[in-house]
Amino acid sequence: MSNPEASLPVHAKDNPNTAADGAPSKNALKKAQKEAEKAAKKAAAKKADDEKRAQQQASADVDNATDNYGPLPVDNAVDITHLKTLGEEHADKTINVIVRVHNSRGQSAKLAFLMLRQQGKTVQSVMAAGDEVSKQMIKWAISISINSFVRVTALVKKTPAPVESASIKDFELHIQKIYLISSAMQMLPVQPKDIERPPPESAEEGATDATGVPVVSLKTRLDNRVIDLQSECNQAIFTISSAVEGLFEEYMRKSGSRKYNTAKLVGAATEGGSDVFEVSNYFGKKAYLTQSPQFYKQMLIAGDSESVFEIGPVFRAENSNTHRHLTEFTGLDFEMVFNNHYHEVLDFAEKLIVYMVTELLSRYKDEISIIQKYFPKAGDFKIKDGKALRLKYLDGVKLLKDAGVDTSDQDAFKTDLTTAMEKQLGKIIREKYETDFYVLDEFPMAVRPFYTKAHPTDPNLSNSYDFFMRGEEIMSGAQRINDADDLEAAMRAKGVDPSSEGFVDYVNAFRQGCRPHAGGGLGLNRIVQFFLGLDNVRQATPFPRDPQRLRP
Amino acid sequence: MSNPEASLPVHAKDNPNTAADGAPSKNALKKAQKEAEKAAKKAAAKKADDEKRAQQQASADVDNATDNYGPLPVDNAVDITHLKTLGEEHADKTINVIVRVHNSRGQSAKLAFLMLRQQGKTVQSVMAAGDEVSKQMIKWAISISINSFVRVTALVKKTPAPVESASIKDFELHIQKIYLISSAMQMLPVQPKDIERPPPESAEEGATDATGVPVVSLKTRLDNRVIDLQSECNQAIFTISSAVEGLFEEYMRKSGSRKYNTAKLVGAATEGGSDVFEVSNYFGKKAYLTQSPQFYKQMLIAGDSESVFEIGPVFRAENSNTHRHLTEFTGLDFEMVFNNHYHEVLDFAEKLIVYMVTELLSRYKDEISIIQKYFPKAGDFKIKDGKALRLKYLDGVKLLKDAGVDTSDQDAFKTDLTTAMEKQLGKIIREKYETDFYVLDEFPMAVRPFYTKAHPTDPNLSNSYDFFMRGEEIMSGAQRINDADDLEAAMRAKGVDPSSEGFVDYVNAFRQGCRPHAGGGLGLNRIVQFFLGLDNVRQATPFPRDPQRLRP
Repeated sequence: MSNPEASLPVHAKDNPNTAADGAPSKNALKKAQKEAEKAAKKAAAKKADDEKRAQQQASADVDNATDNYGPLPVDNAVDITHLKTLGEEHADKTINVIVRVHNSRGQSAKLAFLMLRQQGKTVQSVMAAGDEVSKQMIKWAISISINSFVRVTALVKKTPAPVESASIKDFELHIQKIYLISSAMQMLPVQPKDIERPPPESAEEGATDATGVPVVSLKTRLDNRVIDLQSECNQAIFTISSAVEGLFEEYMRKSGSRKYNTAKLVGAATEGGSDVFEVSNYFGKKAYLTQSPQFYKQMLIAGDSESVFEIGPVFRAENSNTHRHLTEFTGLDFEMVFNNHYHEVLDFAEKLIVYMVTELLSRYKDEISIIQKYFPKAGDFKIKDGKALRLKYLDGVKLLKDAGVDTSDQDAFKTDLTTAMEKQLGKIIREKYETDFYVLDEFPMAVRPFYTKAHPTDPNLSNSYDFFMRGEEIMSGAQRINDADDLEAAMRAKGVDPSSEGFVDYVNAFRQGCRPHAGGGLGLNRIVQFFLGLDNVRQATPFPRDPQRLRP
Repeated sequence: MSNPEASLPVHAKDNPNTAADGAPSKNALKKAQKEAEKAAKKAAAKKADDEKRAQQQASADVDNATDNYGPLPVDNAVDITHLKTLGEEHADKTINVIVRVHNSRGQSAKLAFLMLRQQGKTVQSVMAAGDEVSKQMIKWAISISINSFVRVTALVKKTPAPVESASIKDFELHIQKIYLISSAMQMLPVQPKDIERPPPESAEEGATDATGVPVVSLKTRLDNRVIDLQSECNQAIFTISSAVEGLFEEYMRKSGSRKYNTAKLVGAATEGGSDVFEVSNYFGKKAYLTQSPQFYKQMLIAGDSESVFEIGPVFRAENSNTHRHLTEFTGLDFEMVFNNHYHEVLDFAEKLIVYMVTELLSRYKDEISIIQKYFPKAGDFKIKDGKALRLKYLDGVKLLKDAGVDTSDQDAFKTDLTTAMEKQLGKIIREKYETDFYVLDEFPMAVRPFYTKAHPTDPNLSNSYDFFMRGEEIMSGAQRINDADDLEAAMRAKGVDPSSEGFVDYVNAFRQGCRPHAGGGLGLNRIVQFFLGLDNVRQATPFPRDPQRLRP
């Protein structure tokens, strides 16, 4: 811009050489003329200088990188590298990644640092003005809202020293291109960096940690589960959860077992309807959600599938608000015939758990060590000599009694072990036998469901077992009654009517001959919780359901 | 027994030699004495003979096999051989099997034939009186009710000619011991031999086949599903069903996808509640059963799981009473991000189906050929050059038009293909391209759900696809809208309120950034039905649910 004052007319106001009457003298005119020429010259010089400066300025502002940033161009397919695969083979090579902006910091107009994230893994990246990167590009990049997805083309460089703030420490990305794929809103309900902070369970609403930084409570995390799931820890937890399920399936299939998906909607409630969810609009009838695939598993056995398994939802309308109860969880159920003794099935199930635990420990070291940063017990799961420890229930009770616990109710077969007793027994056994996985066999008949087969010689006991991890139950199982008349008698003895609609198909299944069989039901969510030492089963459940929670 | 008359006193009534006054004469006495001696001698001889006969009789009745039959002895563990493994290595060896009595026939007191069955496989067995087998044992064995489980010890013998009536034709069992494990009731509601008879779907109640033998209708079979499942054909069908699920899981896991189990209970209905089952007693609130894991799959993608899959129940409160609709079925769902174009996901899904089909055809030849006896289309599944055939939807419409079908509604983007059109297209494609598996891509936007991504250049079309087997839909899928604002606009355009409780968590998931993604949902039951050419989806479902059926 030229200076507006420079173009003022030379005969302007306030000129001291102006005559009193207002008319200039000759001398004055000459002088004024000279000065005017001088001023014009000066103004012209200034103008030229300004224009030059403006030109220089403009030249510096020319964006030589407009093609290297902005919205993702259409029809611009490139090969994409996953951050988790980043390694020596990429050093000094250019790669393309699709990542979230975890955070960004402009150091100067010519230098910025962006932390980039993919599936919880973070990598440091640098943008320095140069041939491919303009100041405008840097300004644009650091204006991208946190958590947005970008596609970045970058040169991979080995870092001179490990980058402590990133999970990828030995490499950084020198950004050459950056395109916006999907924009996050400016004000996220929780910050991705805050959900990376341990430990979630103990935090109350509004709590802060030792350094005064707010801690995100479990409730807030679950309310904002989609962001919460993005954390490094949750990515690892659900890799483990998927693996637990996969190992169960793998083991069952190897054994020749057949997978089924049995009906979850049934025409009659089996337990008087108290703990059962009721579907009110089943085409003019009422239906109910199964509380377990138990009856169907056994009916499939009666239907000549000699070994069956199922993975599916289990619905419990129990108003239990604890760290390990859900109204909907994933059941890993199996049932199989045996040839001579139900211990064949118990042996099988023990080996299944041992297989799962040992494979998890060997195949998922990385994930477990990530989780361990947040839940210190993860990775500290003991299983001595790769074998299950099996105790008789009454021997378990004796261990407690020896430790000074009052077990009079248990001695009298009145009640099962309480949750507190189970936990204490877990500690005693861990100390004595160096294992976090153990089995109790031969539970009292009185504390087991009606379909449990009695012990052949001791009428107080039964052919049934529970599995425990870290002193918490993960599975309950038993040999089942396989004779219709015996089953009816057992039902009547427990006050259940075998001729009611909810039972009659089940009981009749055994009237046409059925082999002796046994099985069990594992809770996926609990296995993940207790194996990893998580505080709460909700942390092992993608979208948990409890009496208070039906969303998201 | 001795003859009672032989012991009568010799001076008995009606003796002609008795004197008129009643006193015998000397002569008469002598004669009588002689005759009495004679009679006594004769009686003694007869007695001896009778005793000898009785002894002989008793000796034949001595049961020399009492230990070899009866109820299963306790503490009598033996190695058990599975019928399906029976082979040359067992010839002339003694094995133990646990089998059902499929039927039995006593040829004579000394010879009987029992057809034995395990998991649908049958083997002929013989009981011949001898050292180990008594007539009593034979009598007991043929009195065992049909379908009961027995443990049999038997010598395996190669048969001189194939046994046509058994599925194991080259071996028979010579029974040495037989113990009852579990008894079936005398009058079964349907006979195991009757459920082995094809074909079930077409049969009405009370129908008979060409030879006048009653045909068991599908309804009766499903009402008595536990016996029905025991048939050779059903054993094979559910082996295939388990395999389909296993191959899906195998393929997804190999690709690095993570398995999840998302909530089936949700706090709000997503479709105005019309086709949704309602849970009336969720702790004072109402809950609903999800109609698909669609929203949760996408929320997991937004939660940085880049590829997810789920196998679980899908609930549809639709009053559809067809051969391919159920109110509860097993969904095989997947969802994944892509790098450049949604066809990456479509390619993946096509290869998944090709993998499943080719592996089924190669790994399960035996099962398929069993099923083919009852459903002739089984095993005749064409897939040309091991590749999927992909057509654009509009090219599919054109094939129909060329075949003379009125496609004016489809040309005008008014409606999707009708079921009849899909079937006809399946026939046209089978003839023209020699394949039973094909894909239609780029469906009209108007006939797809609101979350479908529009075609980038043609606003009438969308980035969506359906998969077909034998002209019937097995999967629907698409690229999804991954921007919250676009999604809201698309919802409003279809008259859906994005701020309603059933949608708000879903829409918000995309406000914090989400990669472009696509996926699909397969119906397990339909894949099994159409791959095997079964008449009805209920035949591919262990315990099917429809508007009329909630039991067993």
